[in-house]
Amino acid sequence: MESPQALNRVMKLIEPELINSVKKLSDDLLPVIEYHFGWKTIKGFKTPKDAGKRLRPALAVLSSEAVGGRSETAIPGAVAVEMIHNFSLIHDDIIDGDKERRHRPSAWTAFTVEDALIAGDALHTLAFQVLLEEDTPERVQAARRLVDATMTMISGQASDMTFDDLPTVSFEECLKMEAAKTGALLGYASSVGAVLSGANEDTCSSLEVFGYELGLAYQAVDDVLGIWGDPKVTGKPVGNDLRERKKSMPVSIVLSANSSEAEKLSDIFNITGELSEEEVSYASSLIENAGGREATLEEADKHLKRATEFLNNADIRKETFYELEEIAKFVVNRDS
Amino acid sequence: MESPQALNRVMKLIEPELINSVKKLSDDLLPVIEYHFGWKTIKGFKTPKDAGKRLRPALAVLSSEAVGGRSETAIPGAVAVEMIHNFSLIHDDIIDGDKERRHRPSAWTAFTVEDALIAGDALHTLAFQVLLEEDTPERVQAARRLVDATMTMISGQASDMTFDDLPTVSFEECLKMEAAKTGALLGYASSVGAVLSGANEDTCSSLEVFGYELGLAYQAVDDVLGIWGDPKVTGKPVGNDLRERKKSMPVSIVLSANSSEAEKLSDIFNITGELSEEEVSYASSLIENAGGREATLEEADKHLKRATEFLNNADIRKETFYELEEIAKFVVNRDS
Repeated sequence: MESPQALNRVMKLIEPELINSVKKLSDDLLPVIEYHFGWKTIKGFKTPKDAGKRLRPALAVLSSEAVGGRSETAIPGAVAVEMIHNFSLIHDDIIDGDKERRHRPSAWTAFTVEDALIAGDALHTLAFQVLLEEDTPERVQAARRLVDATMTMISGQASDMTFDDLPTVSFEECLKMEAAKTGALLGYASSVGAVLSGANEDTCSSLEVFGYELGLAYQAVDDVLGIWGDPKVTGKPVGNDLRERKKSMPVSIVLSANSSEAEKLSDIFNITGELSEEEVSYASSLIENAGGREATLEEADKHLKRATEFLNNADIRKETFYELEEIAKFVVNRDS
Repeated sequence: MESPQALNRVMKLIEPELINSVKKLSDDLLPVIEYHFGWKTIKGFKTPKDAGKRLRPALAVLSSEAVGGRSETAIPGAVAVEMIHNFSLIHDDIIDGDKERRHRPSAWTAFTVEDALIAGDALHTLAFQVLLEEDTPERVQAARRLVDATMTMISGQASDMTFDDLPTVSFEECLKMEAAKTGALLGYASSVGAVLSGANEDTCSSLEVFGYELGLAYQAVDDVLGIWGDPKVTGKPVGNDLRERKKSMPVSIVLSANSSEAEKLSDIFNITGELSEEEVSYASSLIENAGGREATLEEADKHLKRATEFLNNADIRKETFYELEEIAKFVVNRDS
């Protein structure tokens, strides 16, 4: 599936702004960040590597255009939300022990845990600095909302970590965690441009719920790719989430059912030490046979529909509606 | 030396507020934070343990009183600056591999690196959330200044980490790093109450410089305690900074001189693997003999004098002046 035209258009607007904002960081912090964003190699050479989809900045800019605002008005929000997203990726890779991201060594692997930790901290602060550089009421509201969304995201990640120590989690608990971990920031991204353009609270709120629902659809697809995704496309090993024994949607659906598959999956998750390729492969067919994959994809569709409904009811420009709808479909049908 | 009366007075005002603000965190984040702040044991029991000096909140409250403001006006700033300080302690302990803090296992040692990392992230965001809970012009200014001070602090820490890989650093480079790492946040603490009370820019700025200079004096003393401090009092092993080969003030003074001691110290720092007790002890006498300890203590005195001068020229209440002066002297004469 081809990348939506709006993603490419916003990328051209935002990428130079993102690069410029990051340059404010001190020389001791810059190399890790420029590497992580895909602009530089480990040794600091320029690289034309894939820099990520920049989904959140695109949503931010479109949410300004949606309410008749200028694209440029959304820039500080677009840059800030991408910084928060990437600070969380850098720290989550440390927490999850993920050695690869976007087909390259993750930041802590390419540099050190210490370097990645402090670089993430810097990006975390920089996001708020970008928004509060000016203190107009709109910028202040955008900053307040980002602080809240960031806190929700961090709580979601903490909850995900707690799940690792639980024998099972219900589907509802899993959904609540994923709403916090992914939904909150996508909700923010999908409304910050409208907030910065001074749109009314109702419209901002509809756009936020659109993003929140899109976030749940996004995460459902992510959970499917985390088990059944093609390593060549995702850049992650086969069954990565199973190796890490993540209580993702497909897993929680199967584990919380009172079935023989639940028992067998539970047994695999209780094996101490690293899982073998056979065990990972057996776990993924168990989940598939128990309907975990199917149910998760249905969940993705359900939230995509809800997202589109909210968008449909929002008082926004028709042209932007179609662009947002296209992005939403792309997100759910992506393969990486 | 007895703890200044103002520190104890403000502690009574701030500690319950700090405890309450932290309670907003989710149950997955709370245990690490409550343990780190000294309120709970590893297993979650209440403990009457030493909770730290709360120097920054005290400065914040006094800076409101100094300009004739109410003590309570400073609370969000006092709470926020203590949160930023403690987020940095939690992350720095991971970065430096420090296993103890205040005579107890550090957060990452008591829990895990992952738990401490995400808890630090939560505290980082919570600080801004506390300030931006209301969007009065004073609160927004206090938040903007905190964002800037936090960024400077993080850059200072990153610069300190870079020093670890350099054969030597000049005294000026060391001072610049320590000004960023410690001075910026103490400058913030010493002025945020005045900012929240709506004091004029000149007074806020004088109070900030007072705190900044106090921060340099504080750090000079810290560097002396990091090598020659009594482990029973500091809660850190003898010569801890030398074990970690920190380029602190005493070290940079000796290393950057063209002396035989510089060469010998350099040789010790170049030893691969852990330093023995004898090597640490030899390094500390080398530094002492080369005048590194003496010069650092003189530096502390110089910055304490400058701090007091700025305070003297600020348009503040005489009574608060004496309280701030007493705290400043206490900071420089402390033994832990």
